[in-house]
Amino acid sequence: MTSLNLEKASRIVDAALEHAASQGMKPLTVAVLDAGGHLVAFKRQDRTGILRPAIAQGKAWGALGMGLGGRALAQRAEMAPAFFTALASASDGRVIPVPGGVLIKNAEGDVVGAVGISGDLPDNDEACAVYGIEQAGLIADPGQPH
Amino acid sequence: MTSLNLEKASRIVDAALEHAASQGMKPLTVAVLDAGGHLVAFKRQDRTGILRPAIAQGKAWGALGMGLGGRALAQRAEMAPAFFTALASASDGRVIPVPGGVLIKNAEGDVVGAVGISGDLPDNDEACAVYGIEQAGLIADPGQPH
Amino acid sequence: MTSLNLEKASRIVDAALEHAASQGMKPLTVAVLDAGGHLVAFKRQDRTGILRPAIAQGKAWGALGMGLGGRALAQRAEMAPAFFTALASASDGRVIPVPGGVLIKNAEGDVVGAVGISGDLPDNDEACAVYGIEQAGLIADPGQPH
Amino acid sequence: MTSLNLEKASRIVDAALEHAASQGMKPLTVAVLDAGGHLVAFKRQDRTGILRPAIAQGKAWGALGMGLGGRALAQRAEMAPAFFTALASASDGRVIPVPGGVLIKNAEGDVVGAVGISGDLPDNDEACAVYGIEQAGLIADPGQPH
Repeated sequence: MTSLNLEKASRIVDAALEHAASQGMKPLTVAVLDAGGHLVAFKRQDRTGILRPAIAQGKAWGALGMGLGGRALAQRAEMAPAFFTALASASDGRVIPVPGGVLIKNAEGDVVGAVGISGDLPDNDEACAVYGIEQAGLIADPGQPH
Repeated sequence: MTSLNLEKASRIVDAALEHAASQGMKPLTVAVLDAGGHLVAFKRQDRTGILRPAIAQGKAWGALGMGLGGRALAQRAEMAPAFFTALASASDGRVIPVPGGVLIKNAEGDVVGAVGISGDLPDNDEACAVYGIEQAGLIADPGQPH
Repeated sequence: MTSLNLEKASRIVDAALEHAASQGMKPLTVAVLDAGGHLVAFKRQDRTGILRPAIAQGKAWGALGMGLGGRALAQRAEMAPAFFTALASASDGRVIPVPGGVLIKNAEGDVVGAVGISGDLPDNDEACAVYGIEQAGLIADPGQPH
Repeated sequence: MTSLNLEKASRIVDAALEHAASQGMKPLTVAVLDAGGHLVAFKRQDRTGILRPAIAQGKAWGALGMGLGGRALAQRAEMAPAFFTALASASDGRVIPVPGGVLIKNAEGDVVGAVGISGDLPDNDEACAVYGIEQAGLIADPGQPH
């Protein structure tokens, strides 16, 4: 079974930032968490706001918390706002239900971690996360809405 | 007076999971709390998100907190979102107002604990909680909306 | 690679309680966490204090937090009290440095979770945790002091 | 004025880990914060405890919090334990007063950030932080005790 190690997590971070640079995106913050929601690798580019570390980690943590990528979480938060208000408190603010939180899966379909990216438009953040995960030889699950 | 003990609480957990398996449900997290809101028995099935323990416990704790099952809480949260935002803070995030939090009552009508289940649709979570409570010879109150 | 699933975690809980019964121990609270520190299986016996769930989970979480069993943590806490006061705050109270928090390892030596037990003397709590882990076919690391 | 940017922060992290590898140290967690105490770059090596991210960040944050490296903080915590217990609460657990939290200064003597490292003995953690900072062309202040 493939799991997430620092080498793969660092590759995800660097590939995500390479993709952002190639597309001329705004400065990004990239966090990679393991399956338990604990930080493995992180980079915040220059000239980014001081809440970005919490947002990037919250996108990833929220995905792991519910077992759903941020795009699916965003849809659910729109349909059930009171539930997501409760989740924000229950998680001490660690659930940020927005695209850009992407589950990392291995070939067996196990969740081995998550990436959270913040700084550009949510769709762009997500595209960088997906690119980074695929460059590391893993499978990205951004959360398809139903 | 019948109260909740570990034997009954464990029976509730296992019966709820048997019901879920017989219905082909998604993997569940099941928490049983005593009347004081303290955990007695708990099982989390494989491949479930890391926030599920807090959600399952929050459904049960919220029911005990207000003396109302999660279905009634959900209706109230829809009508009074600011109040439930305040409750989330007041309870340190331990109130999750969603079906699937079910009060456990004895024959005298006393609340002796609560079950919280998370993982499938709220209606399915609730059905498993009710089934488990009844298999343990106790009375389930999921919270009828008014 | 062997990891921890609900079946093994439940076996650990039940075997630990069987051992306690065979030795005539006081009522126990047993928590099994996965490698990320999230609850998998839990039982609290009748007539136990309401802080026991937090203590049992804190013994297990502290072991995972530092990668050291509770017996080693207890020794370190005695030598470096200010550091452990800081850890209590940094972890939001989830580090309880006492014997009875035991790491669960697989044959490859990976940490796959932890058991925390509270209710009897720390040495007895620890003995039940070790017994439970071994009955589940896994390797117990209670933390040898140096 | 030289300030800390992502390029320098990443250089610090990687150089610290190279030094640790050359000395055969245990797996480390390395965090670099900017002058405002916000995360810039971070790596956690494989097989490290789940509290290590908080400890590494807490060593760096505590140094920035008091304007003193972790070695000086450790000495003060020993002399004034009640004050540091209060700081732990006041900072929400973000002050870890132990060697291994090292201020980063520029040629003008301004504090531009801090490094926190956790995983090996505090002296070794600190040596890696100092090495990393110097490799990035900046000045390390580990906090001389008085």
